[in-house]
Amino acid sequence: MNKVRWLALLLFSANVMADEGMWLPQQLPELEPELTARGLRIEGQNIAKLTEFPLNTSVSLKGCSGSFVSATGLVVTNYHCVNSSILHHSSNTTKLLQDGFFAATLQQELPAAAGSKILLTQQVENVTRQIQQELTPQLLGRDRFEKIEQLRKELVSACETSAGIRCSLYSYDGGLAYYLLKQLEITDVRLVYAPAAGVGQFGGDIDQRMWPRHTGDFAFYRAYVGKDGQPAPYHSDNVPFAPPAFLKVSAKGVQAQDFVMVLGYPTQTYRHLTAAELKLQFSQILPLQQQYRADIIRLMQQHSAENSAENLRYQARLAGLQNRSKNTNILLETYQRSALQQRKEQQQQALLHWIKAEPGRQARFLPALLDMERLVQQQSSNLQRNTLLQAFDAVQLFSAARQLYRNAQEQLKPDSEREVGFQQRDQAGLSATLTELHNTMSPQVEIEIACYLLQQYHQLPAAERVPLLDKFFNLAAGTALDQPALLQLKLQLQQMYQQTKLTDAATLLAWQQQPAPAFSQSQDPLLQLAAALYPAELAREQQQQTNEGKLLQLKPLVMAALQAFKASQQQKNYPDANGSLRVSVGSVQGYQPRDGVYYTPFTTVQGIVAKATGTAPFAAPAAQLSAIATANVSDAAADFLGTVPVNFLSTADTTAGNSGAATLNGQAELVGLLFDGVSESIIGDYEYDPATNRSIHLDSRYMLWQMDKVDGASRLLQEMVIVR
Amino acid sequence: MNKVRWLALLLFSANVMADEGMWLPQQLPELEPELTARGLRIEGQNIAKLTEFPLNTSVSLKGCSGSFVSATGLVVTNYHCVNSSILHHSSNTTKLLQDGFFAATLQQELPAAAGSKILLTQQVENVTRQIQQELTPQLLGRDRFEKIEQLRKELVSACETSAGIRCSLYSYDGGLAYYLLKQLEITDVRLVYAPAAGVGQFGGDIDQRMWPRHTGDFAFYRAYVGKDGQPAPYHSDNVPFAPPAFLKVSAKGVQAQDFVMVLGYPTQTYRHLTAAELKLQFSQILPLQQQYRADIIRLMQQHSAENSAENLRYQARLAGLQNRSKNTNILLETYQRSALQQRKEQQQQALLHWIKAEPGRQARFLPALLDMERLVQQQSSNLQRNTLLQAFDAVQLFSAARQLYRNAQEQLKPDSEREVGFQQRDQAGLSATLTELHNTMSPQVEIEIACYLLQQYHQLPAAERVPLLDKFFNLAAGTALDQPALLQLKLQLQQMYQQTKLTDAATLLAWQQQPAPAFSQSQDPLLQLAAALYPAELAREQQQQTNEGKLLQLKPLVMAALQAFKASQQQKNYPDANGSLRVSVGSVQGYQPRDGVYYTPFTTVQGIVAKATGTAPFAAPAAQLSAIATANVSDAAADFLGTVPVNFLSTADTTAGNSGAATLNGQAELVGLLFDGVSESIIGDYEYDPATNRSIHLDSRYMLWQMDKVDGASRLLQEMVIVR
Repeated sequence: MNKVRWLALLLFSANVMADEGMWLPQQLPELEPELTARGLRIEGQNIAKLTEFPLNTSVSLKGCSGSFVSATGLVVTNYHCVNSSILHHSSNTTKLLQDGFFAATLQQELPAAAGSKILLTQQVENVTRQIQQELTPQLLGRDRFEKIEQLRKELVSACETSAGIRCSLYSYDGGLAYYLLKQLEITDVRLVYAPAAGVGQFGGDIDQRMWPRHTGDFAFYRAYVGKDGQPAPYHSDNVPFAPPAFLKVSAKGVQAQDFVMVLGYPTQTYRHLTAAELKLQFSQILPLQQQYRADIIRLMQQHSAENSAENLRYQARLAGLQNRSKNTNILLETYQRSALQQRKEQQQQALLHWIKAEPGRQARFLPALLDMERLVQQQSSNLQRNTLLQAFDAVQLFSAARQLYRNAQEQLKPDSEREVGFQQRDQAGLSATLTELHNTMSPQVEIEIACYLLQQYHQLPAAERVPLLDKFFNLAAGTALDQPALLQLKLQLQQMYQQTKLTDAATLLAWQQQPAPAFSQSQDPLLQLAAALYPAELAREQQQQTNEGKLLQLKPLVMAALQAFKASQQQKNYPDANGSLRVSVGSVQGYQPRDGVYYTPFTTVQGIVAKATGTAPFAAPAAQLSAIATANVSDAAADFLGTVPVNFLSTADTTAGNSGAATLNGQAELVGLLFDGVSESIIGDYEYDPATNRSIHLDSRYMLWQMDKVDGASRLLQEMVIVR
Repeated sequence: MNKVRWLALLLFSANVMADEGMWLPQQLPELEPELTARGLRIEGQNIAKLTEFPLNTSVSLKGCSGSFVSATGLVVTNYHCVNSSILHHSSNTTKLLQDGFFAATLQQELPAAAGSKILLTQQVENVTRQIQQELTPQLLGRDRFEKIEQLRKELVSACETSAGIRCSLYSYDGGLAYYLLKQLEITDVRLVYAPAAGVGQFGGDIDQRMWPRHTGDFAFYRAYVGKDGQPAPYHSDNVPFAPPAFLKVSAKGVQAQDFVMVLGYPTQTYRHLTAAELKLQFSQILPLQQQYRADIIRLMQQHSAENSAENLRYQARLAGLQNRSKNTNILLETYQRSALQQRKEQQQQALLHWIKAEPGRQARFLPALLDMERLVQQQSSNLQRNTLLQAFDAVQLFSAARQLYRNAQEQLKPDSEREVGFQQRDQAGLSATLTELHNTMSPQVEIEIACYLLQQYHQLPAAERVPLLDKFFNLAAGTALDQPALLQLKLQLQQMYQQTKLTDAATLLAWQQQPAPAFSQSQDPLLQLAAALYPAELAREQQQQTNEGKLLQLKPLVMAALQAFKASQQQKNYPDANGSLRVSVGSVQGYQPRDGVYYTPFTTVQGIVAKATGTAPFAAPAAQLSAIATANVSDAAADFLGTVPVNFLSTADTTAGNSGAATLNGQAELVGLLFDGVSESIIGDYEYDPATNRSIHLDSRYMLWQMDKVDGASRLLQEMVIVR
């Protein structure tokens, strides 16, 4: 452990409460005394209720978070959360990306990209007992899994009483608790304002996960509804939605040490894995995924030369994969360097020790813990084969063929029995994916990736093989994949891509409506391949569901044991992130990334000037640079900086999905937007280290300054309630 | 200007005194009130006297600084200052470089590398009047230069009354003042202790000029003298020198904000250039030098493949050139980015304004200022030719031939009239250079560099050419240097290197003793080339001396004007560094290298663990790493860090030559050794920026810890006086 606490002593006040935790709103009342001591000025009871202020200002944008900031449906979120809408409207003439966009009137507000939605929680119901009473001890493995899926569908279906209502069942702590969320689903979403990419994406991928950071990662949507106030598809007659509440925006901002609170929808964390699960993840699953990912990146780069059509199509995908690869590398390195596994083993030993100390506990929990160990052991078999088959998702057209084939099969069942992802409610999403496909793939690159993955597949031992796949590509174990055989394989793939009609966008989309028999009769080689693989995929899925079922039986007991153990030590527990609304609390604080270096909690507009090169991602707009040149203290309530702050760091515990989440001060005023975490926080999905886990926030003062001094967004400044 | 002062406010106490200044000891009494207020506890009067404590503990190692730290001649300095002695004794068997060296007894102490010396100042005399009274207004240009050189030789010669005495004349402020220094020259220098290269060079070139830094840059020499106490060449009968005083070593060290003081021999700064001189330097001289340097580096790399004999020979030289190139790039970039030139112009305008405000001042100073402008204009002509001819120094054997030829010519004059560098007193140094030459050069690489430089030369206009050089290589202006001609040129160079006998070490050295006629008659092609170039070189030198003479006439007036102007504004002035003993004062402070980042003033042994890779330059010895694993607060008086500090930053104003200089606390105890400056200090040779100019010091606590816990150097720990 790094003992250097030179600055810690100097800068960190006596915060005894750990800032770890993505708390369920209902847990907040028990944290209230601590929160109040740290600066919270609204009562814990309020924060605990999803349908009261301030939680009822928080919305999910599916993958991002946002907040209402006016009485007329204005939603603030991250620039990168509205990126698809900007790209949708940007062209060589409109130049939305380059110049940014500001709708001077309501009429000028632009429809967001297809599929955009704003989800506002209306009701939350604890349905744990309803579910658990159905889960008899006899329900094992896949049966248990299917029972839960059946209950999920029934609950959701009963809840979704009208078109504008979307319901979801959230499982907590591996199935120890279940909550049913009822959300208003607003689908007429419009783009109101986004700064230029040189502001909103300043630093781009280079600066991602990095500090010092200077990204103006904010933008505004507006929620529109029908004249009756109910959600409705886009229509020019629609009117701005009147949210139940909205956040005031602070022009005073925060200072170092200030209390902050983040309301958002973190997607997933793995804090409560068992030691064996953690080890499997880091010693097998992640390294395997990373290996295939690295090779796919290499192939994409090799076969999408600069300025080629391929390059344009793969740019975004490649950037995404590279980012993920970079982050996974950091994750793996951090795990290697840290004693995370060791700590996890020790915690587990302590838990076991506590369980064994009392016969009742031992009888209740020990078998589940031991069974969990065995289950993890089993998971490591077939791992390579399964990871490899998953990697085939990178061959997009082939992946689409598989999805379409599966979709047709699922349509044979009643809607309520269909697999999640293939129900009626999922069809629009599938259409959207299929429509976008041709802009992001090229047969040439697909063939190279498929060929590489089949080579990898060919090296699997006989027991791991998929006979129909072997037959389809003539790849049976024991056969040599020598140079001629390899050429033959590539030739076959080339012929498949020549013969398939799925490369035609309309044809591809049309298959979504085709019934199952049409697939069996099709001569399309990609659909034939999908058909050949279907039984194996189904078998694999069933195997997975069996495992899931076992996990759903054991994990709640393991988590119950852990919770009881923690409670016995006066430790509070919070469930892993699962996409539901959470509250994270922390304070504005820098950190020491390495010996001799301290990252200060604020960056300023002067840092933009130092980084600006004129070339993306460091192309700060000229108008902004000249505004900075004349910026002064009075522009932002940041006397302690002497200029306008841009981004700040906090100890708040966040992860992906939190993007765009409101960062509030103790009075529940918006002081920033969460948009990233530092690279030291990547391991945070597995363990929160108070010394280095830091969230990166956009500063509300920067947002207001940019709106006022650079982008002339006075209409919105007047619409919002700004606390000066 | 960066307005970010977030941490500044938090961390910087109310230090109102600027830490700029490499003060002459005699200036210190006037600074005393300020120094006392900041923590100095010894009286200013003492610091002002070169022959009293603590200044009489400070020694020059020619290019480095050092200090006596025991009554028996123990000298502490930087590891990199004794590097040549370590290499001299290191071999595959002794492994001094890998393992370090510790002499367990006096008898085991090893003779330092040839040419090592320790110079202790014994007397200092202001000889300004003596010199200036000889400089009549009629003495202009080269005559003035030669007059000063003549006076220099006379004064030095009269001062060097015995073999162990070395005298030097130092010129301050461009000739406004002159001091004659009398120094005891101890030549029996022995290596006592140096840690392993994995400590002393930890971080190597990669970390040079960088923070965070973890270099254990310390080592110990001992001064030996004859039994009579007088300097004498190495002899086994020699005894440790008893210095007039020595420094106590602090085991308590410093904390952030603490006062520090550096005693050392900074080589050269350019703070008092005129605006025109500064512009010439940055717009012409440095870019030209950098261009030739970059090309020479490229050629050395191309023609010294890894693991080749060439690689070994050029490794050190290449590393040195690359470092210089890196630093010059930073220097040029900083100049471009900063408003240094603008500030200099403004200062000069203010000076001119002040001069013109009073007729007496105007009459006295204005002509000199205007003449300086003209002189700088003249200097920019012939600049490319002269820079190019200087670059030929990189062709080492050729350079040696030129030196030998010149040496023979100089020997024709009485010793006192010979050029500096060729007098009797300089012959041993020349021998040493010639002896080392063959280990650092390869004909193949020399030919490539010579060929490149001649190509560059060929592009010069007719007016810039050297007729004899044109003739020698058939390179007259207007001739085409096409592919055949280029091949011919390379062939000629190859033949020269085949035919020359100078590649034989003994032959090369023997020429130092040959009289001038032997050179004229020699058929050696390199000596013939040297002869051919001699008249042009002499002419160039005389031209330079003429310029120098003009400068020696004008600069003192310009500096006198500047001083008077500053005095009128209650500003203290200090002369540019010139290799004489100076005192710098400052405090322990971190800095903000860029927006959002703060460099803390201390690094710790934990940072070594984080950097250690096992491979040089990050090969921390195993013994050290295991000592760190058990290190604790009680090992070093650094409770505020919780572990052992390694290096620290201060605002003290230092530059090259200060390496190894004692860093003292207010009680004049040794708390560290200066060994580098951060990259933001490179521009410091031209301008001191209090926000970012930082010296890097080895922490005395780390030195004592390493000696005690890792290297078992108890003999020295007992010999020194350690303040606990």
